[in-house]
Amino acid sequence: MKLIAPLALALAVGTLAAPAWAQFQKPEDAIKYRKAALTVMATHFGRIGAMANGRMPFDPKLAADSAALVETMSKLPWEGFGPGTDKGETRALPEVWSEPAKFKAAAEKMQGEVAKLNAAAKTGNLDAIKTAFGAAGASCKACHDDFRGR
Amino acid sequence: MKLIAPLALALAVGTLAAPAWAQFQKPEDAIKYRKAALTVMATHFGRIGAMANGRMPFDPKLAADSAALVETMSKLPWEGFGPGTDKGETRALPEVWSEPAKFKAAAEKMQGEVAKLNAAAKTGNLDAIKTAFGAAGASCKACHDDFRGR
Repeated sequence: MKLIAPLALALAVGTLAAPAWAQFQKPEDAIKYRKAALTVMATHFGRIGAMANGRMPFDPKLAADSAALVETMSKLPWEGFGPGTDKGETRALPEVWSEPAKFKAAAEKMQGEVAKLNAAAKTGNLDAIKTAFGAAGASCKACHDDFRGR
Repeated sequence: MKLIAPLALALAVGTLAAPAWAQFQKPEDAIKYRKAALTVMATHFGRIGAMANGRMPFDPKLAADSAALVETMSKLPWEGFGPGTDKGETRALPEVWSEPAKFKAAAEKMQGEVAKLNAAAKTGNLDAIKTAFGAAGASCKACHDDFRGR
């Protein structure tokens, strides 16, 4: 029932479709969700890194499966950064909400690099994966540097 | 570097491929991962439920996207239940490890129902979605009843 209020509000302010954050009943749910999506993404991204960096034998199928999951997960966390989700169990910095265009650009940069990583992983070429992994990792770091606290 | 030991052990005991749990550096990482995958799954499953139960307007695309994600996520948590992951920040009951065949069957039952839910969601037929959602929800509950504590 708590879902109704934000949905009604969203419609009242003229949003054509209910924003995704209206689909969380509580801000804590949104925070838990975005962290969970990032945890799953980071786990599979880390496996590609272990192969790219030679800590794990290169397994083309594992790399491709991991990269596909990373790309799927890369689209999810953003709806968890809606209004009211700046407080609580989160390391997200206020800049997420005070500089939304910059945050969106950083998120989109990462998604673009991760899509390239997925394309590289499909080829099974380790050198291509290493290059794309490096660029994707840099996009993760850039966003964390600006928008995630300690 | 910690990755090497379990990998070497897995190879030493004759496992043909390194088991997935060897890809977690620490048991805590595996626990965090499986919980994260289940959180993402539950969030999207809950959206289908909100539509199935009339708490949210039926949006066929949202239902289909959610069900596809639920199916993808349904395959992930299981590798996070490897040896040594029975202690820590978890509600998993000892039966997960003492009754592995039963746990595996429950996990596979859920995955099967969730695949049917995804198929139903692709049709855009709300009645089919409601039926499949009910069966999938029952498979979640059955596994939680037997294998998850409070």
